[in-house]
Amino acid sequence: MQVSISDAINQLLEVLEQDQITTNETVRQLHAKDESHHEPVLPDVVVYPRSTLDVQNILKIANEFKIPVVPFGVGSSLEGNVIPVNKGISIDFSLMNSILEIRPDDLLVKVQPGVTRLQLNKELKKYGLQFTVDPGADATIGGMTATNASGTTAVCYGVMRDQVRDLEVVLADGTIMHTGNLAVKSSSGYNLNGLFVGSEGTLGCFTEITLRVFGIPEFVTAGRALFDTIDSAVQAVTAIRQAGIQIGRVELVDEASVRQANIYNDTNYEEKPTIFLEFHGNQSGMAEDVSFTKDIFEEYGCTNFAFETDTASRNKLWEVRHSIAYAFIHGFPGKKMMTTDVCVPISKLAEAIRFARSQIEVTSLVGGIVGHVGDGNFHALVMYNPQSDEEKLSATKFNENIVNFALKNGGTCTGEHGVGIGKAKYQQTEHGNSLEVMKAIKKLFDPNNILNPGKIFIS
Amino acid sequence: MQVSISDAINQLLEVLEQDQITTNETVRQLHAKDESHHEPVLPDVVVYPRSTLDVQNILKIANEFKIPVVPFGVGSSLEGNVIPVNKGISIDFSLMNSILEIRPDDLLVKVQPGVTRLQLNKELKKYGLQFTVDPGADATIGGMTATNASGTTAVCYGVMRDQVRDLEVVLADGTIMHTGNLAVKSSSGYNLNGLFVGSEGTLGCFTEITLRVFGIPEFVTAGRALFDTIDSAVQAVTAIRQAGIQIGRVELVDEASVRQANIYNDTNYEEKPTIFLEFHGNQSGMAEDVSFTKDIFEEYGCTNFAFETDTASRNKLWEVRHSIAYAFIHGFPGKKMMTTDVCVPISKLAEAIRFARSQIEVTSLVGGIVGHVGDGNFHALVMYNPQSDEEKLSATKFNENIVNFALKNGGTCTGEHGVGIGKAKYQQTEHGNSLEVMKAIKKLFDPNNILNPGKIFIS
Repeated sequence: MQVSISDAINQLLEVLEQDQITTNETVRQLHAKDESHHEPVLPDVVVYPRSTLDVQNILKIANEFKIPVVPFGVGSSLEGNVIPVNKGISIDFSLMNSILEIRPDDLLVKVQPGVTRLQLNKELKKYGLQFTVDPGADATIGGMTATNASGTTAVCYGVMRDQVRDLEVVLADGTIMHTGNLAVKSSSGYNLNGLFVGSEGTLGCFTEITLRVFGIPEFVTAGRALFDTIDSAVQAVTAIRQAGIQIGRVELVDEASVRQANIYNDTNYEEKPTIFLEFHGNQSGMAEDVSFTKDIFEEYGCTNFAFETDTASRNKLWEVRHSIAYAFIHGFPGKKMMTTDVCVPISKLAEAIRFARSQIEVTSLVGGIVGHVGDGNFHALVMYNPQSDEEKLSATKFNENIVNFALKNGGTCTGEHGVGIGKAKYQQTEHGNSLEVMKAIKKLFDPNNILNPGKIFIS
Repeated sequence: MQVSISDAINQLLEVLEQDQITTNETVRQLHAKDESHHEPVLPDVVVYPRSTLDVQNILKIANEFKIPVVPFGVGSSLEGNVIPVNKGISIDFSLMNSILEIRPDDLLVKVQPGVTRLQLNKELKKYGLQFTVDPGADATIGGMTATNASGTTAVCYGVMRDQVRDLEVVLADGTIMHTGNLAVKSSSGYNLNGLFVGSEGTLGCFTEITLRVFGIPEFVTAGRALFDTIDSAVQAVTAIRQAGIQIGRVELVDEASVRQANIYNDTNYEEKPTIFLEFHGNQSGMAEDVSFTKDIFEEYGCTNFAFETDTASRNKLWEVRHSIAYAFIHGFPGKKMMTTDVCVPISKLAEAIRFARSQIEVTSLVGGIVGHVGDGNFHALVMYNPQSDEEKLSATKFNENIVNFALKNGGTCTGEHGVGIGKAKYQQTEHGNSLEVMKAIKKLFDPNNILNPGKIFIS
């Protein structure tokens, strides 16, 4: 350990309680990785702030000693976003997990970054409200804000950036500032909310997050629609999107993924390309949307459209959908998952998924495709043996080819996972000379490059 | 005219055609003002770019000679946003008014900044599509992007910032860059779209704008709901918002404004606090929302709920709503209008409007209140005699008091008009130390402060 870090730790010990700081090996191991395939790196120290003031003190010390800091929620990120690649301080926000204020009349809630989405929804339910962003994992609100997370409901309620009304942020030098207000809209000053959402801890640390919430819809119906080919399934979804049908969720799951999900969940869903979907709204409006959707799906050869109206089987359906990544991981012990996260214009989605399917074949690895197809965002994944250079190379190439397809077609390398480590190499191609502007903004906020260095930008 | 500007003009003459540049007095007068009460200032010269390359050449020259540039659309801004307070070059985008690409399958359109919203909607209609942002005036898309405009439909479809997918921007030094892509969502890099939307020409000039568009709704019903008091009208709207009813538009018009509108439009709408509203959707869903709304409105003492189902009277209704500002201006020749644009949290709206009404009384000037109450955004206006220092002072104080009320209650000084000149003095109070961050970003993009100087920030 270099001198600077030990000096920094000594100073941290002066501003934090004993139980808020540790160099314990096991704890550092827990903060060395996320749920991605990226290699773990141990931080030098892990700290547990209890307040904005703690975060301010931590950042002041880190900045003085030029020690990297990485904000950490529950480690459910998927591109190495929380891996401390340059070591330093991992800031674990698990002690800052209070729901600070619920304003039902304003449909707003203010939380600390360590609150998880299920914790928040459990509380909101008492008010007939819901926080809609649903990435699958029970991620923290701080982490979801940092990566601009979305998930199955974005097609209806928007992504994380659409929900954030205000952030309390601590900057690299310890300055505490706010990025927004409590109004529904504003044309005052520059839009700092949008800039900080998705900044992956590279511009500052969030200490309070004010979010828009929604009333729990009056009626909800979920269903599964089976198709003969993945192509017709995607085209059917594109058609209902273009028809402007109000949809709550619309998810594609290919045959291989249904198979894996059946094994993992002990379900017996028919192993065909399937659209999992959900409708939200008032009873009669929803009924009309459902029947309109059925008509369109039949045009595209939908063979079976089964509905789950009771809450239990509806929850089971989404549990199965969300289990797929884990189903693959648990299904192939010792293997790692390489997953893509591209988002393409709707008109290119069917072609993109055909291409992705072909790329899975090329690897001759086990893989599947799932995705938030209503938004043009999907995940093509393969399972590879990290001990085999050949499989590793093949999985990496697979990821690259799909990203390059997306970028060539007006899409993005990441729809919701964030850039982290894995997508940094595509930033130049995707953003062109606006990447220089992004780097200048980074330098402006973080001159010593202490805030999650090595993420978004290749250092 | 200082030497630098005449030298700059000589250089501009080398890169532009004769008909693209003028110092004609009348033309300069047309570019000296907007629709606000702010004092006109004549630019030294007006230029008419035809291409991104023209804009690049103009900015390179302006930057070299440190001459201010102000982008100009149709001059419909309401806070002096296009007034060249430091003189210099007014860049009139009226020759860059092409709709470059319509992608119906992607629900996207790419336009030049000089395209107006009515021009765009006329073209989109052929595809069954609509661009939803509706500020009343037939503003240019460039101007609406610059101020993050919204209007009557934001409550349903969002504000300008929600529509912009990509911008081609020319920076102060002539660099051409893009801020986004064609995908529905992205977590790649920093959100430059959001930063540039609402930047009021202070960070760069837009040369291409890619926007989200929507299908024209299957069914539309518009109506007027009359209430005994403005307070009960506002509470009724707040209640339907909180009930999560899908509403296309919901506008408040107070008695004084209905009176003025009747005179101007030769209508005979009953002079009571009125909610103008519109429902969009499928037939049965809409019917259910309408009847639910009726029930809630009756609880709040709605005395009359009249519907206009045919397109003609529906258009008339919104024409009347949009005419109100002009109705006051034409109704009081020689007087100027002072209008506020605050947006407050929904829970504070009724109180804010009561306060605004009381402030109109205080001035003892003629005035009214209209607003996009579904978003908590409203305009309280008074007509004052610019020759009378007393009336001018009273109108200014009225504006200040309402802004301060909004800021004290978690709101913003401008919901949709932008900061321009008039709201610059509130930026410190509203943004606190994040204003320093905004200033640093401005300096980063525009080190010579040539881009619309004197706007947003007090120079």
